[in-house]
Amino acid sequence: MSELAERFGTPFYVYDGDSLRGQYQDLRERLHPAMEMFYSLKANPNVAVCALLGSLGARAEVSSMVELRTALAAGVAPGDIIFLGPGKSRAELEACLAEGIFALVCESFGELAMIDELARERGCIAPVMLRINPSFAIKGSGLTMGGKPRQFGIDEQQLFDEADLVKNHPGVRVLGVHAYMGTRILDPEVIAENARRIIDLAERLAERLDFVLEAVDVGGGLGVGYFTGEPDLDPAAVSGLLNPVVEAFHAAHPGARLLLELGRYLAAPCGTYVTRVRYVKTSMQERFAVTDGGTNHHMAAVGIGSFVKRNFPMRLLNRAGTDPGPWNVTGPLCTPNDTVGRNVELPELQPGDLVGVLRSGAYGPSASPVLFLSHGHPAEVLVDGGHARLVRRRDTVEDLLRTQILG
Amino acid sequence: MSELAERFGTPFYVYDGDSLRGQYQDLRERLHPAMEMFYSLKANPNVAVCALLGSLGARAEVSSMVELRTALAAGVAPGDIIFLGPGKSRAELEACLAEGIFALVCESFGELAMIDELARERGCIAPVMLRINPSFAIKGSGLTMGGKPRQFGIDEQQLFDEADLVKNHPGVRVLGVHAYMGTRILDPEVIAENARRIIDLAERLAERLDFVLEAVDVGGGLGVGYFTGEPDLDPAAVSGLLNPVVEAFHAAHPGARLLLELGRYLAAPCGTYVTRVRYVKTSMQERFAVTDGGTNHHMAAVGIGSFVKRNFPMRLLNRAGTDPGPWNVTGPLCTPNDTVGRNVELPELQPGDLVGVLRSGAYGPSASPVLFLSHGHPAEVLVDGGHARLVRRRDTVEDLLRTQILG
Repeated sequence: MSELAERFGTPFYVYDGDSLRGQYQDLRERLHPAMEMFYSLKANPNVAVCALLGSLGARAEVSSMVELRTALAAGVAPGDIIFLGPGKSRAELEACLAEGIFALVCESFGELAMIDELARERGCIAPVMLRINPSFAIKGSGLTMGGKPRQFGIDEQQLFDEADLVKNHPGVRVLGVHAYMGTRILDPEVIAENARRIIDLAERLAERLDFVLEAVDVGGGLGVGYFTGEPDLDPAAVSGLLNPVVEAFHAAHPGARLLLELGRYLAAPCGTYVTRVRYVKTSMQERFAVTDGGTNHHMAAVGIGSFVKRNFPMRLLNRAGTDPGPWNVTGPLCTPNDTVGRNVELPELQPGDLVGVLRSGAYGPSASPVLFLSHGHPAEVLVDGGHARLVRRRDTVEDLLRTQILG
Repeated sequence: MSELAERFGTPFYVYDGDSLRGQYQDLRERLHPAMEMFYSLKANPNVAVCALLGSLGARAEVSSMVELRTALAAGVAPGDIIFLGPGKSRAELEACLAEGIFALVCESFGELAMIDELARERGCIAPVMLRINPSFAIKGSGLTMGGKPRQFGIDEQQLFDEADLVKNHPGVRVLGVHAYMGTRILDPEVIAENARRIIDLAERLAERLDFVLEAVDVGGGLGVGYFTGEPDLDPAAVSGLLNPVVEAFHAAHPGARLLLELGRYLAAPCGTYVTRVRYVKTSMQERFAVTDGGTNHHMAAVGIGSFVKRNFPMRLLNRAGTDPGPWNVTGPLCTPNDTVGRNVELPELQPGDLVGVLRSGAYGPSASPVLFLSHGHPAEVLVDGGHARLVRRRDTVEDLLRTQILG
C-alpha cells in the first residue's frame, strides 16, 4: 500500500478487482439464472468499477444523465440498463428513449404523462416499469421504504384505482413493476420475503391493469456488515431462499425478466479509503491522528446516518505496528464532526503512517461533501490482476477554481 | 426570479449583493474599528462573494490551498489573510510563507515543528498564532469546541507547560493566540464573554511564554436565525457588548490586531437556493413536490446536523399562489433523506413552479454531496446593483465525466 500511496498520492480510494469480482461471482453462481443482477451505479459511479462488473455480466441501474453515460461508456448494453429516480428531467427521459434502454422506472402519474407525450413526439413506444409505493412495509432493513408517504413510486392503492391507466397512455408499454423496500438488509429471509411480496404485487397489478407481465424489479437493499457484530450476508443462504421464489416466477412467466438491484452489496467490500497521518497529538488524555482526508471524502464513516457514531473497520496499512490502543482518527476539516474513527483500536501511529478505512467501496466520495473546504475529489485506483491503475484522478487546484467566475 | 431561472437554468444558488453588503456594513459600522472582520471562506468559497466582502474591507480566513488562491484572486491582501485547519499539508504551509500571509494558525506541536523547519529552510520567520483548545467551554452555542478532547489547537494546559516553546522555535514568530469556541451563537452576551475569555487566555499565555501579544483571534461563531423562533442577532446588541471588550484590549495592547471570524453570519442571509418543481404527487394523504435539486446541493436543509428535521424558510418564487397548505419538498435523489422541507406551508404547487430555500448563502453546495447521483454542482448567480451575473457555472455532463478514466 505504501507503493500505491507513493505513486498516486494520498488520500485515495483503492478498489480491489478480485474482491469485486468475487463478490459478484459468489452470488451470481449460486443465484437462479433467471434472476438478473443490476449494478446500482449510485453506490459507486466509477466507470472502471462499472466496466469490471459489466464484463462479468452485470446490468446497470442508473439515476442521472451522467450515470447513464457512465454505464454506456463502461460497455453495458442499452437493453440491460434501467433508469429510475423520482425527479427525472425531460432531457434524461429523452436520452433514455434515444438510447433504447430496457425500461424507464416511472415514479409518478405526472412522469407517466410526460413519458407518454415524449414517446408519441418521437414516434416510439416507451418501455416502462411502474414503481409502486407498497401499502406494506418490509421489516428488518436499515431504511424502510414501504407503507409510508414517499416521493418514490405511486401508492399501490392509487394504481389499483386506475384500471384504464395502460389504455390511457398509448405511447407507453408497461412492462411490469418495480418496488424498493429498504436498504442494508442483512437477513436472507427478509430478502426472499421482499421478492415474494413484490412479485405477488406485480402479478395482482398486471391483472388489474390488464398488461402482460414482462418484468419485475424486486429492488435490492442487500447489505454488508460494517460494524462489530454485523455479519455479512451468506450468498448461499440468500440464494437458497431466493431461488425457489425465482423458479416459481420463471415458471409462471416464462421469458419475463426478474431484476435484482445491487449497489452497496457489490461495491462496499472491495474498497479502502487510504489516508496519510499528518499530525499526531494528545488532547485531554485522548490521542488524535490528523490525516489528510476525512469526512469530506467519506461521510458514511460518521456512522451511515445513525445517531450514534460507529466505526468502520480501520487498519494501519504501511507497517505492522505495535502498542495497540484507542485513537481518534480525524480529517483536515474545521469541524469536530470530521471524525472518521472514534476510539479505534490501532497501533501507535506517527506522521506519515497510512490509515485505511475498509469496506468503503460504496457511498464514498460520491456521497460525501467533496468540496468542503475546497479539498476536492480524491484519486481512485483500481488494483486488478496484480496491476494498479488510476481510474479517477484527484481534483487539482486548477480544477477546483475552473468553474468559478470572478466577473 | 423566473427570469433568472430562465436565463441560468435550475437549480441554482442566487446571492443578493445588497443583502451581503448590508449584513457586513451593519455590523462593521457599529463595531469598534480595532476589531477586524475576517471572512471565513469555508462558509461560502465563491470568489465573487469573497471579492464583494473584500471590497468592503473584509479580511479572509482560509483553510485550504484553493481557499487561499480564492482569497488572493478575490483581491484580499496577503497581509489580511490567515490560514487555519488541523491538518495542513506541507504544500499549504509553504504557500502561506511564499505569499506572506498575516499568520498561520498553528494547531499542534507537530505542526509548529514543521513550520519552524520550513521557515528556516526558506530563511524566513514564520508568523504564527497558536490555536488553543481552552480548558473552559462557552455555553450557548450550537457546537461547543472548548473543554473537550479535540483535534483542534493545543490544550491550554500543554501550552502553559511549555515555557520555552517560543525560544525553541527560532524560525517562528509567535504573534498571538487563536481560539474558536462554538458555532451558531445567537446570544450577544455569549459573544462578548467568548471574546473576553479568549483575550484573557491570550494575555496569560503571552506572559507565560514570554512573547509580545501582537494578535488575538477570538474565533467567531456568530449565528443567524434559520428556524421558527430563532431571532437574528442584533448587530447593535453585539457591538454594544463587544466594543468595551475591544476598547480594553486596544488600550492594553496598542497596535495589536484583534480578529473576529465571520462566515455563516455574513453569507447565510444573502443566499437563496432555487429549484424548479418537476412533479407533484400525493402519497398516503401527504403532498410532495419533487424538484430538480435537493440535499445533493443543500444538505444543511436536512436540519443542520440536528436529529430532528427542521425546515429552512421556503417560498414559492414565481407567482403569488393560493391555497396554502403543507407540502413535502423533495429532490431528485433516490433516498427518502432527500427531503428539503417536510410539511412546509406553501401555496398549491404545480410542475414548473420555482421553490426557493431562503437563508442558504452559507454551507450550501460546498458542504453538500454535490456528486451524489452525479448531478454535479449547481450554478451560482450574484445579483448586485440590479445586475445578475453567473459567478460559478454548473457542472456539465462532460465536467462530471472528465476525471474518470476507463483504462
